[in-house]
Amino acid sequence: TEGIDLAVVAGDGIGTEVVEQGLAVLEAALAPSGTKLTTTEFDLGARRWHATGETLTDEDLEKIKAQDAILLGAIGDPSVPSGVLERGLLLKLRFALDHYVNLRPTKLFQGVSSPLANPGEIDFVVVREGTEGPYVGNGGALRVGTPHEIATEVSVNTAFGVERVVRDAFARAAARPRKHLTLVHKHNVLVHAGHLWRRTVEAVNAEFPDVTTDYAHVDAATIYLTTDPSRFDVIVTDNLFGDILTDQAAAISGGIGLAASANINPDRTAPSMFEPVHGSAPDIAGQGKADPTATILSVALLLDHLGFAAESARVQDAVEADLADRPAAHGGSAVRTTDQVGRDIAARVTE
Amino acid sequence: TEGIDLAVVAGDGIGTEVVEQGLAVLEAALAPSGTKLTTTEFDLGARRWHATGETLTDEDLEKIKAQDAILLGAIGDPSVPSGVLERGLLLKLRFALDHYVNLRPTKLFQGVSSPLANPGEIDFVVVREGTEGPYVGNGGALRVGTPHEIATEVSVNTAFGVERVVRDAFARAAARPRKHLTLVHKHNVLVHAGHLWRRTVEAVNAEFPDVTTDYAHVDAATIYLTTDPSRFDVIVTDNLFGDILTDQAAAISGGIGLAASANINPDRTAPSMFEPVHGSAPDIAGQGKADPTATILSVALLLDHLGFAAESARVQDAVEADLADRPAAHGGSAVRTTDQVGRDIAARVTE
Ligand SMILES: CC(C)[C@H](C(=O)O)[C@@H](O)C(=O)O
Ligand SMILES: CC(C)[C@H](C(=O)O)[C@@H](O)C(=O)O
Repeated sequence: TEGIDLAVVAGDGIGTEVVEQGLAVLEAALAPSGTKLTTTEFDLGARRWHATGETLTDEDLEKIKAQDAILLGAIGDPSVPSGVLERGLLLKLRFALDHYVNLRPTKLFQGVSSPLANPGEIDFVVVREGTEGPYVGNGGALRVGTPHEIATEVSVNTAFGVERVVRDAFARAAARPRKHLTLVHKHNVLVHAGHLWRRTVEAVNAEFPDVTTDYAHVDAATIYLTTDPSRFDVIVTDNLFGDILTDQAAAISGGIGLAASANINPDRTAPSMFEPVHGSAPDIAGQGKADPTATILSVALLLDHLGFAAESARVQDAVEADLADRPAAHGGSAVRTTDQVGRDIAARVTE
Repeated sequence: TEGIDLAVVAGDGIGTEVVEQGLAVLEAALAPSGTKLTTTEFDLGARRWHATGETLTDEDLEKIKAQDAILLGAIGDPSVPSGVLERGLLLKLRFALDHYVNLRPTKLFQGVSSPLANPGEIDFVVVREGTEGPYVGNGGALRVGTPHEIATEVSVNTAFGVERVVRDAFARAAARPRKHLTLVHKHNVLVHAGHLWRRTVEAVNAEFPDVTTDYAHVDAATIYLTTDPSRFDVIVTDNLFGDILTDQAAAISGGIGLAASANINPDRTAPSMFEPVHGSAPDIAGQGKADPTATILSVALLLDHLGFAAESARVQDAVEADLADRPAAHGGSAVRTTDQVGRDIAARVTE
């Protein structure tokens, strides 16, 4: 049995608390197979930045590249200027490790209450592009602080970048029972980028003839997520639209306390990264109040990515069983403490 | 009594049907004062484009500029390539007439059911910037149709453009009981544009010391709109984020059949334009199924803008009374026909 070398980036705020539980569940899932888990902690985030001014050094990055995967808690603190850790650490990891598939499954689990009056069945996955779009950092400003300031942000979209993520999304759709793919964009306004996305979806569809497709403008997509989320099976969209829609998707399916994500490098030229969609939540940090479920579901995605399908299913099942037993109106935060939830889920994995 | 010269752009699909009812209500509201309404119809949209290849000529624009205001139904048809009418007509009007305040009030009216289980009180207004951001049409593409295609979209934000819309939003917030303004952006990723917006809100706040402010990332804003929409009073945001959030706002408050908007030129250097948020809905066009309420509420915004405050209030009250009497679960579409709804509301205005 081969071992797993895991980079652990607990990060800021509740990051450390939820990652601790994610790791406990990961250990429990791997124990039966005797797979050795070797974790290397990376001290990255607000603390490190305050102490050294560093966000992510070349040396950090090289060490991380040598790992099999990354488990990330949360990055960000109000004491650090906005953008410094997001651009300098979190997005730098996603870009440097070519995480072009930002995978965000959305499921309304049994026992979880939705803020929607009639949610219906919610079970879709968003394939968010992770290395292009308005996230490339291709912006600038002139005459800052004067009445003549101008600030730009450039969304960059390439055939190479769009095609690979669209193909990945088609493959995921083809593997699901409903085999349906929805492109979300805004091609009636962002005509150049939008038409590239649209043409690419049409072209790649030829490789997956049994997948049906449709299209929604991003504004209309927020309506559908409110009135008819069951219509979605797989959504493919750009980096910014994916960011927006997946927070809304988390909200309708029980909150960001339950929303998992995987930043995947499908070509496996670098480790993939698994992280809850929620942030560092400094307001509840250190109080044992954070729900580790999103991190534990991210661990299930990690196991699946590394080829531990059975172990991944055990974690997923354990979470679903735990959720089904929770008091109905738990919302995004746990009634039990963070480590109680982790312990209960780990126990179910071990059962 | 001065008259009103109104440009009428009924447009495509249900546009003609809803505008007819909007005009009937406008007539009813103006009748008691004896104000003369002179309408000039502009044949713009899909039909004209198919017939002549024209979207909006300089001559159209000059004639429109001579009017006091514009009532617009809906633009767009699947038979026209995406972007042609949006960029060439609708956005051209907004940009050429300097509609920098795109005002979209959101209210959950009595008698209207929300798709949210616990909507609470929903009563906020989105001030969406209308002449900058990713909507400027500053994009391009290279090597189109090849594997080396690259498509860009540039968001342009100027101190001039941001400051004027932020000041307008503050003034609106100051005039409301709660006096609260929320900036929505994504300044942790779109750092240049985002920081310009943030600094501008901080600076203009000094002119409105009794207005409290906060900030939400656009992704988080979609969560709040789902779980806690009551927190919002006035939202100020950029053109694209405003587009997205106002569709979601419409969804939670009873659907786009009820969502009104005003494209305002506050400096009055050109006529402002009033339009429902919904599109041309070709699937239900010509069937008398479209709900004209959003257009009628847009007429209320038009009256207010032209200084007919009492008439505006009458229209608003008539709509609210009509809604309160509708069967609970009407959603976005009327149970009555389009012209029945219009007639009923006009009758209440006249009462
Ligand atoms: C923290 C932020 C940079 C990040 C993003 O915008 O991608 C977050 O919102 C997410 O969705 O993972
Ligand atoms: C039709 C489209 C160009 C338009 C926009 O994006 O502004 C519409 O969605 C709106 O919100 O008025």
